[in-house]
Amino acid sequence: MEVFMKALQWNGSKLELSEVPLPEPAEGEALIRLTRAGICNTDLEIMAGYYPFNGTLGHEFVGVVEQVRDTSLIGKRVVADINNSCHGCLMCHAGEPHHCLNRSALGIKGKDGAFAEYLTTPTENLVLVPDDLEDDQAVFAEPLAAALEIQEQVDFSDGREAAVIGDGKLGLLICYSLVANGIPTTLIGHHPERKSLLDLPGIQFLDAPPDRQFPVVIEATGNPSGFDDALSLTMPRGTLVLKSTYKAPLTFNAGPVVVNELTIIGSRCGPMEKAIGIMATGKVNPRPLVDDLYPLAEGVSAVSKAKEKGSLKILLTMDQ
Amino acid sequence: MEVFMKALQWNGSKLELSEVPLPEPAEGEALIRLTRAGICNTDLEIMAGYYPFNGTLGHEFVGVVEQVRDTSLIGKRVVADINNSCHGCLMCHAGEPHHCLNRSALGIKGKDGAFAEYLTTPTENLVLVPDDLEDDQAVFAEPLAAALEIQEQVDFSDGREAAVIGDGKLGLLICYSLVANGIPTTLIGHHPERKSLLDLPGIQFLDAPPDRQFPVVIEATGNPSGFDDALSLTMPRGTLVLKSTYKAPLTFNAGPVVVNELTIIGSRCGPMEKAIGIMATGKVNPRPLVDDLYPLAEGVSAVSKAKEKGSLKILLTMDQ
Repeated sequence: MEVFMKALQWNGSKLELSEVPLPEPAEGEALIRLTRAGICNTDLEIMAGYYPFNGTLGHEFVGVVEQVRDTSLIGKRVVADINNSCHGCLMCHAGEPHHCLNRSALGIKGKDGAFAEYLTTPTENLVLVPDDLEDDQAVFAEPLAAALEIQEQVDFSDGREAAVIGDGKLGLLICYSLVANGIPTTLIGHHPERKSLLDLPGIQFLDAPPDRQFPVVIEATGNPSGFDDALSLTMPRGTLVLKSTYKAPLTFNAGPVVVNELTIIGSRCGPMEKAIGIMATGKVNPRPLVDDLYPLAEGVSAVSKAKEKGSLKILLTMDQ
Repeated sequence: MEVFMKALQWNGSKLELSEVPLPEPAEGEALIRLTRAGICNTDLEIMAGYYPFNGTLGHEFVGVVEQVRDTSLIGKRVVADINNSCHGCLMCHAGEPHHCLNRSALGIKGKDGAFAEYLTTPTENLVLVPDDLEDDQAVFAEPLAAALEIQEQVDFSDGREAAVIGDGKLGLLICYSLVANGIPTTLIGHHPERKSLLDLPGIQFLDAPPDRQFPVVIEATGNPSGFDDALSLTMPRGTLVLKSTYKAPLTFNAGPVVVNELTIIGSRCGPMEKAIGIMATGKVNPRPLVDDLYPLAEGVSAVSKAKEKGSLKILLTMDQ
């Protein structure tokens, strides 16, 4: 007897709530019953044509292990790294499984994602969620890991200041992750009403680019418009981190990059264990970024809401 | 009595051979009698509007010290770092005099350059030329230093391979500098007839991008067209070095930069002493890159020749 579940699927032109077969875990995989999923800008960009994915969207989630070979895991709350690596290619052998040449990525490439009642994912990618972390926090593990990736790539050990451009949910989360580790941070954004979300020591909010430069600038506006500001805010020999993925092409004058010997670093997925860890210590609490929660059955409306200008994090709930 | 000299000057719309007053060295400066100057793509780009410089062009040169406070220097053959730093600003204090916020740069910004019979430049910038290095080699010190700058910025210590895109004079010089230090190098260019200039161990010439990627890719085509090739040749987590300055804006898809976590590094001026040193040991000999020599008096024709598609290094001579 085939069992079915609800899943929010993108078919290349339309987003629909469908009844699809319950996925069966392959060798080495676990079946996860989802409790929360977060809508990310990347989901919206996939629907805008950024990447040709068809299937169940969603890569930010928390859930409960339902079926797995290692029975000690059953019933545990987990999040998971979204990159499923082959362990056989050049990049895997180079110790870069996130850049596996044959990888699939949950809800992005070759693997159904988390806007569903269940998903399957490699057991090796699972990260346990401590009991005192709520689902509404743990669901931020993936984007918080992506924010923390910046600190894996850029050396802040000499007390260098950071400027973050863009006060959307990713920009705010990046600010949280920076000040949690003692990095002085200036956020430049267009939503002064979000100042209350930034009432943390070490963050300054500005609603226009200041008349000075920073050794590290992080572009998190989610569109090409922030790049010119980011370039002009970066000190000579400084580092500009590109954090957002979008479909639109980027046009800029490469002259200042060469003349000022800037470093531009693309930054994607990060360390999930560190994300869970920094939330567990209470140094980062992303809960205030939750704008609204929708049941999975209202997923199409939830995505519409996430697209609205000014929305912060919209969560899907599967257990309420 | 005022003394005059010949200088090839750009007035913002026209290049002309002029009679101009002999420059007087300021405090801390030396007067250099020029013997050779090289025409660089940056000179052509300045005339195309890349940077609003008016005055005597030229920043690649070798000459003889004619007048200076330290009389032991008089009569010595020299090259010089082209960046004149203030020693007082933020960047100078940070140990980055090449990025001095108040700098002038010979023939590029705020200071007359080397397409003349004489120039003045800070004594501290002078680098002595060993006797066994010919003027036609020493004149390459500045662009060779710029090529060597890549090795100051990118770590090649783990035997990483480089691909260079563009077989113009800068691309070829970069190849020379890489293989001189044992870095395996693939040059991708459109001039197979230049293979003979690359008859050195460790260089491979290809006339089309290969079907594989490299950990380090150096974009030296001198125009935006090479950037897409450079992006797709860079391995995930790899480094793309932007070496050429040009006026045209650059348009590209930032997605792969983020997804593959590429590092893009702008690279400008480099260590002059190392450039002279590596030529003195014979590990780099740029002489084969000289395409033609013109007397300064025929400087306008020399620049026209340098603009021709397929030209390599055109030198101006002041002592013949």
